[in-house]
Amino acid sequence: FGLFIQFQAGMSPKITVELLRKLRQVMKGSKYVAEPIQAYIIPSGDAHQSEYIAPCDCRREFICGFNGSAGTAIVTEQHAAMWTDGRYFLQASQQMDNNWTLMKMGLKETLSQEDWLISVLPENSKVGVDPWIIAADQWKTLAKALSSAGHSLVAVQQNLIDAIWEDRPARPSTQLSALGLKYTGLRWQDKVMQLRAKMAERKISWFVVTALDEVAWLFNLRGSDIEYNPVFFAYAIIGMNSIRLFLDEKRTADPVVRDHLVLTEPSKAELHVECLPYQRVHDELQAVCSTLGPKDKVWICDKASCALTQAIPKMHRAPIPYTPLCLAKAVKNPTEIQGMRMAHIKDAVALCELFTCRNKIKPSDKITLSLLFASSQQKDFVGLSFPTISSVGPNGAIIHYRPLPETNRTLSLTELYLIDSGAQYRDGTTDVTRTMHFGTPTDYEKECFTYVLKGHIAVSAAVFPNGTKGHLLDSFARAALWDSGLDYLHGTGHGVGCFLNVHEGPCGISYKTFADEPLEAGMILSDEPGYYEDGSFGIRLENVVLVVPTKPKYNYRNRGSLTFEPITLVPIQLKMIRSELLTQKERDWLNDYHRKCQEIIGAELERQGRKEALDWLIRETQPIM
Amino acid sequence: FGLFIQFQAGMSPKITVELLRKLRQVMKGSKYVAEPIQAYIIPSGDAHQSEYIAPCDCRREFICGFNGSAGTAIVTEQHAAMWTDGRYFLQASQQMDNNWTLMKMGLKETLSQEDWLISVLPENSKVGVDPWIIAADQWKTLAKALSSAGHSLVAVQQNLIDAIWEDRPARPSTQLSALGLKYTGLRWQDKVMQLRAKMAERKISWFVVTALDEVAWLFNLRGSDIEYNPVFFAYAIIGMNSIRLFLDEKRTADPVVRDHLVLTEPSKAELHVECLPYQRVHDELQAVCSTLGPKDKVWICDKASCALTQAIPKMHRAPIPYTPLCLAKAVKNPTEIQGMRMAHIKDAVALCELFTCRNKIKPSDKITLSLLFASSQQKDFVGLSFPTISSVGPNGAIIHYRPLPETNRTLSLTELYLIDSGAQYRDGTTDVTRTMHFGTPTDYEKECFTYVLKGHIAVSAAVFPNGTKGHLLDSFARAALWDSGLDYLHGTGHGVGCFLNVHEGPCGISYKTFADEPLEAGMILSDEPGYYEDGSFGIRLENVVLVVPTKPKYNYRNRGSLTFEPITLVPIQLKMIRSELLTQKERDWLNDYHRKCQEIIGAELERQGRKEALDWLIRETQPIM
Repeated sequence: FGLFIQFQAGMSPKITVELLRKLRQVMKGSKYVAEPIQAYIIPSGDAHQSEYIAPCDCRREFICGFNGSAGTAIVTEQHAAMWTDGRYFLQASQQMDNNWTLMKMGLKETLSQEDWLISVLPENSKVGVDPWIIAADQWKTLAKALSSAGHSLVAVQQNLIDAIWEDRPARPSTQLSALGLKYTGLRWQDKVMQLRAKMAERKISWFVVTALDEVAWLFNLRGSDIEYNPVFFAYAIIGMNSIRLFLDEKRTADPVVRDHLVLTEPSKAELHVECLPYQRVHDELQAVCSTLGPKDKVWICDKASCALTQAIPKMHRAPIPYTPLCLAKAVKNPTEIQGMRMAHIKDAVALCELFTCRNKIKPSDKITLSLLFASSQQKDFVGLSFPTISSVGPNGAIIHYRPLPETNRTLSLTELYLIDSGAQYRDGTTDVTRTMHFGTPTDYEKECFTYVLKGHIAVSAAVFPNGTKGHLLDSFARAALWDSGLDYLHGTGHGVGCFLNVHEGPCGISYKTFADEPLEAGMILSDEPGYYEDGSFGIRLENVVLVVPTKPKYNYRNRGSLTFEPITLVPIQLKMIRSELLTQKERDWLNDYHRKCQEIIGAELERQGRKEALDWLIRETQPIM
Repeated sequence: FGLFIQFQAGMSPKITVELLRKLRQVMKGSKYVAEPIQAYIIPSGDAHQSEYIAPCDCRREFICGFNGSAGTAIVTEQHAAMWTDGRYFLQASQQMDNNWTLMKMGLKETLSQEDWLISVLPENSKVGVDPWIIAADQWKTLAKALSSAGHSLVAVQQNLIDAIWEDRPARPSTQLSALGLKYTGLRWQDKVMQLRAKMAERKISWFVVTALDEVAWLFNLRGSDIEYNPVFFAYAIIGMNSIRLFLDEKRTADPVVRDHLVLTEPSKAELHVECLPYQRVHDELQAVCSTLGPKDKVWICDKASCALTQAIPKMHRAPIPYTPLCLAKAVKNPTEIQGMRMAHIKDAVALCELFTCRNKIKPSDKITLSLLFASSQQKDFVGLSFPTISSVGPNGAIIHYRPLPETNRTLSLTELYLIDSGAQYRDGTTDVTRTMHFGTPTDYEKECFTYVLKGHIAVSAAVFPNGTKGHLLDSFARAALWDSGLDYLHGTGHGVGCFLNVHEGPCGISYKTFADEPLEAGMILSDEPGYYEDGSFGIRLENVVLVVPTKPKYNYRNRGSLTFEPITLVPIQLKMIRSELLTQKERDWLNDYHRKCQEIIGAELERQGRKEALDWLIRETQPIM
């Protein structure tokens, strides 16, 4: 499962006349802005760089009706425009009324937000934005472009959408749960100490934690403030002798939290957690910064909000693309690895159950429910890790299809079926995709499937030196497709959290060169090449894989080598494979993989007394020649 | 042949006491600087971003003695320090006396130039640099760092090294030669018109040409101002209706040049070339800029000198990573492709001759001379395109070894021999590497050679969609080595000019992600994986390859596919190959390649009456099973 697309059923446009009138009123009025502003920018996203956001943060959707995962709206006195990318052109045009202009990003003729603003604004305009939901680096670029054209970018502290959003949902503050050593492998106190060691190494005095999964990982706490992600709204400021945690005050009263964070009894001063209200983070950070010596430096992620970043005086600011917590979280410890293995075994059991009884249930949305039911029977099941993609035939070509009443198709014996699902268990997060045919696939479908399988194996079995970055492996996944003139237009893999977000940095396998960090033993990623034929079918084959050390014949410059070990253990449908297109090495890989599935998942199915599923598993994992 | 290392025989340190005293005097005096400067930076390089430089531009070598290709010297009142990278630590420490501190780049404890300056300078210091030999982007970074610490970076117009360099060589001004349509395929007038079309498309009014190979390519002129590179010192400023060419005045008097550029007769106004003295470029550019309207933009490469870049007011400046000439030059036209093919045929003939008579000559430096002799017998030979690398045994592990009296080894029957050579012909530039054994190679040497060959074939035979960037192919070259725990620490390929520089942008095949442009049919690159074992041997296998369209079975989204066609046609030594490690596809590739060598080079050897070489070629190109 790659990039998430939030897509809901209603596709009639939202009527925005009245909303825009109100917004333009507050843009002019003196209640929220010192001087009238001529334009207001409404980005997607929350104050924590989250990929998934809570309903209270869906401000761009509120103002224009478009609910895709990516898009920025800008409202001026005369115009309202919304920028989004090619994945969403159709959806956005259906969800927005004609008060809005759709700005199609990626097309040559489409102006950038800066250029558009400059083209429509009167001289000396003020452009407002909420500094909490714009990243510091974006602010900088935008401010520069605007000022070079005689305008200025201003931070509007009160969010103007919130000001006009009458029934805006409250910010969630769900029950928190504490994870014990059995799940985390490391006490939060030890994580703090390790973090401080890294800060000392780099001569850093303070670190501001802004990403929700980093706060959750650091303190071994989980919540459910955001759907699919077991996180909760919080910030932290870690000093060498102090720990400040900012979260909804009522949470601090929770005995579970008090106990876990040792709030009740006096603890060692440097491990004492001072809990403060969520809203106080900015003022506290300013207070901290006012005590800094001339050489003190404060770490903050360069994607953190402009508001928090600018609270740190420039001379003390040390922005980093990936925080030490992001890196530490990515390298799973033995307990986490074991948890991820267990979670994937349970997930495989649920999928085997589902595939066994596939004949009893037909429409693809019903399969989603069946799977949810099967997963929920497994120990420590918490919920899904993303909305299940369950698509039949041509729907499979829509890379992140979610069954909708209008487009739902029924499983058939003549079409390919693609299921991409994942769950949150207390011991780990899963993500797996299988493509199957329940009748007789065409030779062409099998050929494409086999190329995708070859790509999957090429990555999974790759041996590469320590220090290699994931993007260098991306072409391995495509070579077989390229050889036949085929390709897929998404990345090959993403980091996977451990009972955390299903997408996490700082590693990935993609043709897009982003500043990824080298792969390390203990990291967990997805390996998910695909092939999609518009209007016909979609194929994707995804395992979650663990980076492990390996010892090839030689060891050049003592660098050591790495490879991947699949953690997902779900059969790959043999019927779809044109065995003659595989090399002997690829056949060996497949047989070995299926042997492992049979052994490990078979044992678990047996233990759980799932006889029918076990029979199915054994049938589906026979070696090929 | 990858990155060039200039390495000369003398390895005793240069005595610099007196030079440093003189330099510090001019840093303090009022003759060259308005106010005394506390530090002076001496970068490598000339005013044209050249990779190879003329003797008059070797200022860093002059002041410190170190003559490697990369290094920056900084002299303060108290200190003298020189930064270079790992390739040069040994050489630099041998060539510099103890007035100099060697700053080893890439080591954790080594301060950056900025940090070092800040640590040694007294408050409010002025740091001087020649704005002609520092790139605009470097200037910006450095100026920012210094000013944040209370110092300032100042442009010293008169180069202070030149001021103390008594016997500084004159700037070369060699005879120019004009290339006719037969060699270029396109008149310079048409190149100017095509350039203007691109400028019009992007609404650009002026373009400043600063790279020497771009000036040479645009005007279809060649010189020999810089060793190995057929270029000449010049700038050009191209407007929509005017062409200004800046070069040594005496060149303008040359009838060949006058004739070629149609200086004598009145030509169409917009194709009239105005020749101006080389030194006038700055003032003319300023004059041009003073006439600009508010929307006029001027293109200049972002790696151009600070002096020229800053001559363009910021509001008119449009810096680009690759100029339209760089891109146009990279995609060879049919005449250039034909010329490159011919050049490589001649080169192959010379190499066949060399290998045929290898028994008559022994030490590796003598082979270099023999090859030069063989090449010079070929039509339109101009010179070498880089210093020949000719290394026996352990010298092969020094990636850019050049035979030196102290280290020269004699060919033997027990060691590997690596030769990496290239030449300039009037129709094209060549670059080829072969590794051979004249006795019986060990199994291990053969195994490593075979992995390198597999990597070479994997790139050469790769099929990939239009729009793919070269860096995505780099791992293909390494996969076989990685599988066995081996690797090589250089890139896999670079662009090759046509009777121009042997290294050119904007494409390459490398694990380093630089901002490369997508590969296009007509581009010419090298494919040169290797393996190097310190103290034992070096293996590299390099062909020059042409990007060509190909038609695999399918055509996803009508994007079209590309692959490579080898232009280099020199046998790959069969004795070195462990055939059982090759796949059938790889054996087919090799046999097909050797068949082509035999056919094309055989015909030419026959035509030239080189019977002995023809016999050798036929023996060396037998198919393997």
